[in-house]
Amino acid sequence: MVNYPNKKQVQTNVTKTTNKKDTRHRGMALEADINTSNEYYLAHDICVIYKKPTPVQIVKVDYPVRSAAKIIEAYFKVPSTTDYNGIYKGKYIDFEAKEIGNKRTFNFNLIHKHQIEHLERVIDHGGIGFIIIAFTAHQEIYLLDAKDMIMFYQDSSKKSITYEEVKNHGYLIPQGYLPRIDYIEVVEKVYFKGGNL
Amino acid sequence: MVNYPNKKQVQTNVTKTTNKKDTRHRGMALEADINTSNEYYLAHDICVIYKKPTPVQIVKVDYPVRSAAKIIEAYFKVPSTTDYNGIYKGKYIDFEAKEIGNKRTFNFNLIHKHQIEHLERVIDHGGIGFIIIAFTAHQEIYLLDAKDMIMFYQDSSKKSITYEEVKNHGYLIPQGYLPRIDYIEVVEKVYFKGGNL
Repeated sequence: MVNYPNKKQVQTNVTKTTNKKDTRHRGMALEADINTSNEYYLAHDICVIYKKPTPVQIVKVDYPVRSAAKIIEAYFKVPSTTDYNGIYKGKYIDFEAKEIGNKRTFNFNLIHKHQIEHLERVIDHGGIGFIIIAFTAHQEIYLLDAKDMIMFYQDSSKKSITYEEVKNHGYLIPQGYLPRIDYIEVVEKVYFKGGNL
Repeated sequence: MVNYPNKKQVQTNVTKTTNKKDTRHRGMALEADINTSNEYYLAHDICVIYKKPTPVQIVKVDYPVRSAAKIIEAYFKVPSTTDYNGIYKGKYIDFEAKEIGNKRTFNFNLIHKHQIEHLERVIDHGGIGFIIIAFTAHQEIYLLDAKDMIMFYQDSSKKSITYEEVKNHGYLIPQGYLPRIDYIEVVEKVYFKGGNL
């Protein structure tokens, strides 16, 4: 069994809010961490947010007798939108998540132009949009509001956002055992004025 | 070139609202019709709603030299949620779409239990949820609010919803050239009280 660093501590705590959370990302795949966090949120009726399936162009399907249809030729498609969306406290939530390996910058080639346009539309229609950026080298994960992301992206002199810029404009997301990446805590503080950041 | 029945009429109209819309579904695949309607809505900045990609479990990927990664073994997965979601006038929108061939009933085996549970959660969190049901035999398409769908589904004496029940509890969706299936017009009237139905 995996020995989770925070397991004992969390189990002995009675209330969720007393969990001590740290902010270090331990190198687990960001997507897996967000997915388990979303499962936690769902189980605790906090929000309803899912990752969209990977878009795939299916070309050939085989139907073997007495067994499930088997896709034997398919290709990855460029996504039209961001990876995650759903609802929190009646508001539409939409975001993309990116993990930055050992580099200190978020390069714009990590995001598609139409994903930026999608986030612009989300904001225009009254939704909440952002990007979650995990800097593995710093073991830190940030939420950067889509408006800031778009501002940086539209600055023709820039090809990337530095770690310092994300740190200055974004919000550090607490990490813990459950949920692994508590981005809703940040969403609450930033967009619902439930607290101060 | 395909001779669209309403083409001339729509082209000679100056304003969108003067389009005469009928309510007959001409047997085109429902999904394709909803997708083109969503593209129309997107292009006209009416709402931002997409179909989620088909969930696929990817098992084997081949990486031929100098060409795109090719998926050579994958299987269809049961979807966790409904097919469509997005945002309209700041509200979270979530729905499933089903086409009923020549039958006069919507059988509950067309929808997964966790899709019903998902729609319940959407409502609980303040979103708008519904089902679009196309009766090909009647050439009619209805929007049925998720609350009604759930009510029928939870009635243990029922295994399906009849055409008449959908007609009585649901709302007929206008069909036209652009958008093909104007479900947002119904959403506006039913959930935003923009008119009377």
